Amino acid sequence: MHAAFAAAVREAGATVGPLGEAEALIWADPQRAELYPELIGAAPRVRWIQLPYAGIEPFVEYLDARFVWTCGKGVYAPPVAEHALALALAGLRGIGAYARADRWSAPIGRNLLGARVVILGGGGICMSLIDLLAPFDCDVTVFRHRDAPIARARVITERSQLDAALPEADIVVIALALTERTRGIVDSAFLSRMADHAWLVNVARGGHVVTDDLVVALLEQRIGGAALDVTDPEPLPVDHRLWSIANCIITPHIANTPEMGLPLIAARVRENTARFVAGDPLVGVVDVELGY
Amino acid sequence: MHAAFAAAVREAGATVGPLGEAEALIWADPQRAELYPELIGAAPRVRWIQLPYAGIEPFVEYLDARFVWTCGKGVYAPPVAEHALALALAGLRGIGAYARADRWSAPIGRNLLGARVVILGGGGICMSLIDLLAPFDCDVTVFRHRDAPIARARVITERSQLDAALPEADIVVIALALTERTRGIVDSAFLSRMADHAWLVNVARGGHVVTDDLVVALLEQRIGGAALDVTDPEPLPVDHRLWSIANCIITPHIANTPEMGLPLIAARVRENTARFVAGDPLVGVVDVELGY
Repeated sequence: MHAAFAAAVREAGATVGPLGEAEALIWADPQRAELYPELIGAAPRVRWIQLPYAGIEPFVEYLDARFVWTCGKGVYAPPVAEHALALALAGLRGIGAYARADRWSAPIGRNLLGARVVILGGGGICMSLIDLLAPFDCDVTVFRHRDAPIARARVITERSQLDAALPEADIVVIALALTERTRGIVDSAFLSRMADHAWLVNVARGGHVVTDDLVVALLEQRIGGAALDVTDPEPLPVDHRLWSIANCIITPHIANTPEMGLPLIAARVRENTARFVAGDPLVGVVDVELGY
Repeated sequence: MHAAFAAAVREAGATVGPLGEAEALIWADPQRAELYPELIGAAPRVRWIQLPYAGIEPFVEYLDARFVWTCGKGVYAPPVAEHALALALAGLRGIGAYARADRWSAPIGRNLLGARVVILGGGGICMSLIDLLAPFDCDVTVFRHRDAPIARARVITERSQLDAALPEADIVVIALALTERTRGIVDSAFLSRMADHAWLVNVARGGHVVTDDLVVALLEQRIGGAALDVTDPEPLPVDHRLWSIANCIITPHIANTPEMGLPLIAARVRENTARFVAGDPLVGVVDVELGY
């Protein structure tokens, strides 16, 4: 990631230099957020900070309106939306259960064609997923913070509207940023509103789901199943109950693999560096108030 | 199926009557093709025969140009294409392997976004699949018998062209009718042309694939994997080697489940009955020469 970002900076016409002279700080090691206070203290000229990844939880405590903060917001949306679709289809079509079978078994499965889909979150993943769903002729409802329209979807912003939409959904996709407002949103009350055939798909963050509540809902077959690319805790421990539940598909946070994502985030770094050099507005700006 | 077809006939303005007086024979029991000679002998006024399902193998030996034969051709295409897409995504994204895992594991997966797809067969499943693939911006090549263009795809008709296209494909989808020309088309020579990361998806008939050759190709990791909704033999016996191969996903011929398919084929019976009553051309006519 460091090499790719350094190349992207050079391709955009800037140079990679010592911290004391830098006007921008481009973070290439998402595991080391705790170094931020020390580094920023040694970087008096920095005006812009580019973070890797779309979710910026490790950096939220450092957000500071003196700087422009940008992140990978939207960059990874197409591969993540693709994985959300793959998980939704795998769930509805019973592919998880069939993959585990060791013999020919009875027909199960429902169509995504014409299904009712509720998406939580109106960001890049949502937009890309709506694009991928277009030929399926689904009925799409998006629950989002901002009351701004989305093509080919019904937008709702109130929790009461979400509560009314959940029982009608065949698929519920979590594509939210993780904030204090959204942490634990999928709890027993949420799950009890879902139809007993409906699948939950989470491609956002494990913290959106109250894992113990989900385990109960799955064991009691109150929902059709869950397809999770993210879990809480993550990584999911080897002895966790979720591994053995038949109608639960777990993928290890690979909606956007390093192989898929590196060229995408490097392109964002290149674009933002070029914009910074030219004095143009940056892309993927973090709202310091909202924290994403 | 019998009740649904009888209702469809009545809805189309015709009556369900005794064989000796019938002008059309609508077959509602696909398991009992061997009754055909006896039944047709007792049905002197029949001019049109409607078969269930899209594949008509059990009836091929009886095809007879004195009658107009129609089948479910095209009717099941949308759900079958949906399942082909589900299997392609499950394969590329490693969902079969992850579903079997009992612990967090390393990132694997490739994108269908922008992938190269080769489809064998240019019928309804192919057309529906191309529709579903549209937002993925794939490069699609269709190998078909007739040299007729297909929107958003490159059409090839020669085996040499197919041989040239196979090494470039990330996904190879079998969506052919099963005839003597296509039986066993996926053999060791075919599989050896595929890229070592490519997935084979079969939603047509098990007989298109030489199963023993596929087992070898999978065990030797000569291809990325196989996702099979149909097998040869079918049902696949409980002790068959394919069940234990990690990069093989098997679903039990459920691309179109009875629940999904019955309303679709009943609608075809209704439409064809109405056309027959009105003297209009029927839909889904079998080519007696080609046998599908």
